[in-house]
Amino acid sequence: MDPHRALKYARTHRATFVSELKEFLRFRTVSSEPEYANDLKKCAHWLANHLQHIGLERVKVIPTKGHPIVYAAWQRTPARPTVLIYGHYDVLPGEPVREWRTPPFNPTILDGNLHGRGASDDKGQLFSHIKAIESYLSTGRALPVNVKCIFEGEEEIGSPHLTSFIVRNKRALRADAAVISDTRMLASDRPAISYAQRGGLRAELEVKGPPHELHSGNFGGAVHNPLQALCEIIARLHDAHGRVAIPGFYDDVRHWGEEERVFMERTGPSDDQILQDAKVEQGWGESGFSLYERTTTRPALTLNGMAGGHHGAGAKSIIPARAIAKLSFRLVPNQDPQKIAQLFRDHIEHVTPPAVRSSARTFSPIRPALVDRNHPAVRAAAFAYKKGFGAFPVFLRSGGSIPVVTTFQEVLGCPAVLMGFGLPEDHIHGPNEKFYLPNFYNAIATSIWYLAVAAKLRTAERMEKQTKWQSS
Amino acid sequence: MDPHRALKYARTHRATFVSELKEFLRFRTVSSEPEYANDLKKCAHWLANHLQHIGLERVKVIPTKGHPIVYAAWQRTPARPTVLIYGHYDVLPGEPVREWRTPPFNPTILDGNLHGRGASDDKGQLFSHIKAIESYLSTGRALPVNVKCIFEGEEEIGSPHLTSFIVRNKRALRADAAVISDTRMLASDRPAISYAQRGGLRAELEVKGPPHELHSGNFGGAVHNPLQALCEIIARLHDAHGRVAIPGFYDDVRHWGEEERVFMERTGPSDDQILQDAKVEQGWGESGFSLYERTTTRPALTLNGMAGGHHGAGAKSIIPARAIAKLSFRLVPNQDPQKIAQLFRDHIEHVTPPAVRSSARTFSPIRPALVDRNHPAVRAAAFAYKKGFGAFPVFLRSGGSIPVVTTFQEVLGCPAVLMGFGLPEDHIHGPNEKFYLPNFYNAIATSIWYLAVAAKLRTAERMEKQTKWQSS
Repeated sequence: MDPHRALKYARTHRATFVSELKEFLRFRTVSSEPEYANDLKKCAHWLANHLQHIGLERVKVIPTKGHPIVYAAWQRTPARPTVLIYGHYDVLPGEPVREWRTPPFNPTILDGNLHGRGASDDKGQLFSHIKAIESYLSTGRALPVNVKCIFEGEEEIGSPHLTSFIVRNKRALRADAAVISDTRMLASDRPAISYAQRGGLRAELEVKGPPHELHSGNFGGAVHNPLQALCEIIARLHDAHGRVAIPGFYDDVRHWGEEERVFMERTGPSDDQILQDAKVEQGWGESGFSLYERTTTRPALTLNGMAGGHHGAGAKSIIPARAIAKLSFRLVPNQDPQKIAQLFRDHIEHVTPPAVRSSARTFSPIRPALVDRNHPAVRAAAFAYKKGFGAFPVFLRSGGSIPVVTTFQEVLGCPAVLMGFGLPEDHIHGPNEKFYLPNFYNAIATSIWYLAVAAKLRTAERMEKQTKWQSS
Repeated sequence: MDPHRALKYARTHRATFVSELKEFLRFRTVSSEPEYANDLKKCAHWLANHLQHIGLERVKVIPTKGHPIVYAAWQRTPARPTVLIYGHYDVLPGEPVREWRTPPFNPTILDGNLHGRGASDDKGQLFSHIKAIESYLSTGRALPVNVKCIFEGEEEIGSPHLTSFIVRNKRALRADAAVISDTRMLASDRPAISYAQRGGLRAELEVKGPPHELHSGNFGGAVHNPLQALCEIIARLHDAHGRVAIPGFYDDVRHWGEEERVFMERTGPSDDQILQDAKVEQGWGESGFSLYERTTTRPALTLNGMAGGHHGAGAKSIIPARAIAKLSFRLVPNQDPQKIAQLFRDHIEHVTPPAVRSSARTFSPIRPALVDRNHPAVRAAAFAYKKGFGAFPVFLRSGGSIPVVTTFQEVLGCPAVLMGFGLPEDHIHGPNEKFYLPNFYNAIATSIWYLAVAAKLRTAERMEKQTKWQSS
């Protein structure tokens, strides 16, 4: 299978590819908002049609209790290895819309970037693989390897139905390596392979006081305020040095030796770089660790949102009746999400003032994951990057959580190569999300090369039948 | 002037009065929400027409930079004293509407109570005086005293334009006593005169972090979270014992001697009663003081509302870019709102973590006020209550802030008699606000008697030309 014809096809079809990606971005596939369920369904069918159209087979839109999974495959070369490609077509909400330069669901090119919600996370990245496959099938009617694609619609809400789908279809999904492009490079000329992801755990905290709002004149000073109590509880989740103050929280955190820390310092972003990416002047958090370590090898607890009482225009003299907070943990080896959930609930109970009632719910546990940097499937990706972006990748840890990595590891026993094409300045999850178009084109080339090289790595991989996962 | 014909008229016109009050309550006079400005205007004109219709004179709807003031008078008996009647036709928002048994702006009678936003605070109470005046003018074509009415539309937002109006019209508004019915009784057979109100000061606190929301996976643990910082700041506004932790906050708080404390214990609500009114199981706040003291002679700081980040349905993995909180102080003699504002801003600056920026704004300062319980105008009110409700009133302190009391004291030199007709269970400022109809009827009778007795008290009052205010 000659990648050069595919590469040439990809080069000459860039304009079409971008216009198709725009079409893909127009779907308001906000998985967290029930009102968009139909948009996700429509998008899944659009995607399935597109996969069929480029020549993939066994295309299916598989319903779940939530949003559908889109599946497609090409398995005409049984003697060759199988690559499983994963991506997600769901996105985060576009709010606050007024902070966007262009409307979030009206994809627009500005200065060589395609702006729109999902442009980088993850529609643009997954689409790079689709266009690579199309480039082969349109020029040679075959792929260098067997391919299976799973594109889910619930990644941003913690993939609640993906694991059971994979468990049920364990045999059908068997693959020699999985490729996931949902992470970022250091810069457009510095590709990166993410070999570690933090795990996660979401939490909701509710504090209740009086059954109704009370007049703060009549009762202020004599009745506790659930919103104030919630603030006090949250203030007790971190100590004054930015460490999580939940007793036992750090007990199982893996301690990394000098070798890995030096490797990370050499390959990872500097504190300055991270501050610049975040556009803040100073860092925060656990002393004794670089900002890169604080976002990768160290766990974190983030308050994602909170509301209570009257916070609109004008004033309202009330003691609120209730207040809620949404939080998320980022966990690292060897923390167990279930154990952390228990420690969290115990701590909340312990720090809740007696005059109010609190309830803590935790959900979407995700175990942290690590991939062996020397696995042949990872080395193949390094070679593909060199061809696609002109540089070997650095090996990075990712601070986010990609639930499916843990699932591939635990259910399919299959290594997941995290070949990211996003950039730090892509504003994923915030206003003005974008995808740098040169990255899109190079990502397609990289995927073309990866599929070519993956064909040769079979033997090596078979030798490592028990894929080596460093995760606990 | 015989009050008995007026009383009889009031008794036979109850059904009409209630139906007129319902009409008054239907106006969505939410002064804090700009979208309702026109509803306030319409209501002001409806009220003015109504005052004209019952025989009041010099009726005017006076525009302000905010919502209009409605003025009316009857001054045909120059030798007699003048009573200034104050009320407010604006109300708080109806939210959360789903917690109401009946829609907030669709007044409905349930079990002898008129339900609706403003039923008790303050449309129902001010309307009692209007119906008393009507009862005189319809039966005898004259009032026992001269009357001036000011009904404002901005009480719930701190009366920003009332003081300047009163200052500008100081001579025209001169009166011998003012009557304000915007407070509550202990029970429907236990009338009360509020002789003290706490002062107030509103504050808004904003904390800013990164210029945009950040992905909590990529930056969680390394960038400070303005929402978490706001919680930490708020947690430092009170100490562990429920005392306000702003240095210097209690410096000027007047210490009350044993005599007043015993009086308060005898006349005021018990801790149990206050807990029952609030429907909570335990109290909170400064130890060493009864709950009644904590809400009247002791100052308080209440967090009225707060918001930041994603708090809607679903989850969003972000570090928010900003967070806001709305707070209100309740101040007591001899605290000075301006001095407290400065202490607050200094403290906020002191407790703001270095990795975020905070800004504190304060507005609507209101000085605390006290009225001499032995003033003849107050004694006249006690007599009127005995006639209207069958019981002498208890003398209570009010925890809320009635800005106009301070203004009457400082600008007009006129004592304000706080003759409340509300009940503790009226749910003012919360869902299911209501006015107990027997209180409405007895309030009208009380107002009829007050106007009659006020005519006789002129001499005594003239003797105390310099009205004695106990306030600092």
